[in-house]
Amino acid sequence: MTSLEIIKAPIAGELKDFEPYFRNSLKSDVPLLSTILNYVYRTKGKQLRPMFVFLSARLFGETNEFSQLAACSVELLHTATLVHDDVVDESYERRGLFSVNALWRNKLAVLVGDFILARGLLLQLESRRYNFLHLISRAVQDMSEGEILQIKKSRKLDIDAETYFEIIRKKTASLIATSMAIGAASVTDDQELVEKMYRIGQDAGIAFQIKDDIFDYQEKGIIGKPIGNDIKEKKITLPLLFLLNNSNPAERMRILGLIRRKNKNTAAVRELIKLVVERGGIEYATLKMNEFREKAIEGLLEFPDCEARQSLIELMNYIADRKK
Amino acid sequence: MTSLEIIKAPIAGELKDFEPYFRNSLKSDVPLLSTILNYVYRTKGKQLRPMFVFLSARLFGETNEFSQLAACSVELLHTATLVHDDVVDESYERRGLFSVNALWRNKLAVLVGDFILARGLLLQLESRRYNFLHLISRAVQDMSEGEILQIKKSRKLDIDAETYFEIIRKKTASLIATSMAIGAASVTDDQELVEKMYRIGQDAGIAFQIKDDIFDYQEKGIIGKPIGNDIKEKKITLPLLFLLNNSNPAERMRILGLIRRKNKNTAAVRELIKLVVERGGIEYATLKMNEFREKAIEGLLEFPDCEARQSLIELMNYIADRKK
Repeated sequence: MTSLEIIKAPIAGELKDFEPYFRNSLKSDVPLLSTILNYVYRTKGKQLRPMFVFLSARLFGETNEFSQLAACSVELLHTATLVHDDVVDESYERRGLFSVNALWRNKLAVLVGDFILARGLLLQLESRRYNFLHLISRAVQDMSEGEILQIKKSRKLDIDAETYFEIIRKKTASLIATSMAIGAASVTDDQELVEKMYRIGQDAGIAFQIKDDIFDYQEKGIIGKPIGNDIKEKKITLPLLFLLNNSNPAERMRILGLIRRKNKNTAAVRELIKLVVERGGIEYATLKMNEFREKAIEGLLEFPDCEARQSLIELMNYIADRKK
Repeated sequence: MTSLEIIKAPIAGELKDFEPYFRNSLKSDVPLLSTILNYVYRTKGKQLRPMFVFLSARLFGETNEFSQLAACSVELLHTATLVHDDVVDESYERRGLFSVNALWRNKLAVLVGDFILARGLLLQLESRRYNFLHLISRAVQDMSEGEILQIKKSRKLDIDAETYFEIIRKKTASLIATSMAIGAASVTDDQELVEKMYRIGQDAGIAFQIKDDIFDYQEKGIIGKPIGNDIKEKKITLPLLFLLNNSNPAERMRILGLIRRKNKNTAAVRELIKLVVERGGIEYATLKMNEFREKAIEGLLEFPDCEARQSLIELMNYIADRKK
């Protein structure tokens, strides 16, 4: 079994029930919308977030219909965000298929994203899970703030480690934190436990994003997207930040010049990647990522040992060790 | 006093308090986002929807802090929708100013729209007004479904009166219906009254959209946007629908040909407008609009007479008689 299969074993039943549940949530009577939603369903990924939800629920009790709702809520939000992200990034591919905006243009992609967002909220409302709504709405706000902060910073190339961590905490970690919190909230009313899970999820989410940022400096093809994308978009992530902070003023000027260069050719991107790798930017980012992974695992170890805890720990390791 | 000033008179205090309330809701600690939100605030319009909210509240009691929240909720949703609409329609102007996508591109416009949407939901959650949330989320879903239905139908030029009314009920009337319902819900727990107000608002909203659709066939400049926009986008609205339904098969083919024509020049648009006007399409649409206006007013007349009722009736008349 692969590590992901081992992780999934204790929640196999939940994940099986989740498929029709999620699929049903992506429905509409409007024919064109229904076609697009079916397509969106086909672009679904590994569904790590539902795994976080179910495992977090199992840590405190038996999963129930609200755990399904919780998993569906985060996956719908994640899906809506991806549909909008592809518009935002003008990207025409999503998990090996065309993106919604590629097939139906921005017009429909924006509307479909809004629809999926509203659909999730309505599901939570209908079940009267107002605490879920609170967690989800907070995540929507955090995610858009994080993305906007990143855009602002990449325009001015004005970023330090503190800002980098604020960006990834908001744009990525908030949803993984929400997944763990909402999973716990589906089986327990203990607010302290829910908040604790949120914090653990936040650390896991930060590790997740650092890993993603490291991928951008590694061999092309590993995650199926061209290397150096972040550099092309002037996104200064942790490996590059390390390089900048460990360069003398003259080098720094030169590096910023390379990042700033319009219509960057492959040579400029390659040189930046080479510098980052040589100066140890990958090692540094990996070190930081492992700090967050360990913090998350330490948080989990405060709970009694059980199958779900073991799987969650393995999920943290999977995030940090995954090859794509 | 203009008719709008007369309408506003009984809720002058509420509208005055609303300004800082709404302005405060458009805030963020993220600097770029804060700049854009300030700009969005500057593009605000006549704020008809808050007027619907406050007058509907006053029909059943004294307005309170929840009435402010209700007004702010619909105005935030309306604002978010407009920001996304400008991306969807690739329009670069909004009420005489540049649109958000014109100044900050689609990337930010999509995110800012999402943020404003989430902000409204969080306000409602924080106040624990779950019934507001329900009404608002339903409106988000209806509005995106309505827009998508319109896009689908305008692609295939396959539309009948029933579909036309379904589109405008969902994309426009749902928010005016929600404004009246949520206003009432801010002062009364009587679900029957709330639903009655929803239905009245739906009729008023349909009249509102028919009026907008008529504008597109009238002299350029009246509402400050070029005439014939709907035709250019292949949107078949009520005046054109009337023409199609009152043409013989040969004429019908010719008209559909004119609508279908790519890169429509002014001549084709002008000819279609001329045909619609000559055949009585404007009169027909005006007749239908007045039916809905009257239905809305009849609904209001079932409530006891008061200043708020009079203003609401005037608001219905304003919608139908406005010159822009």
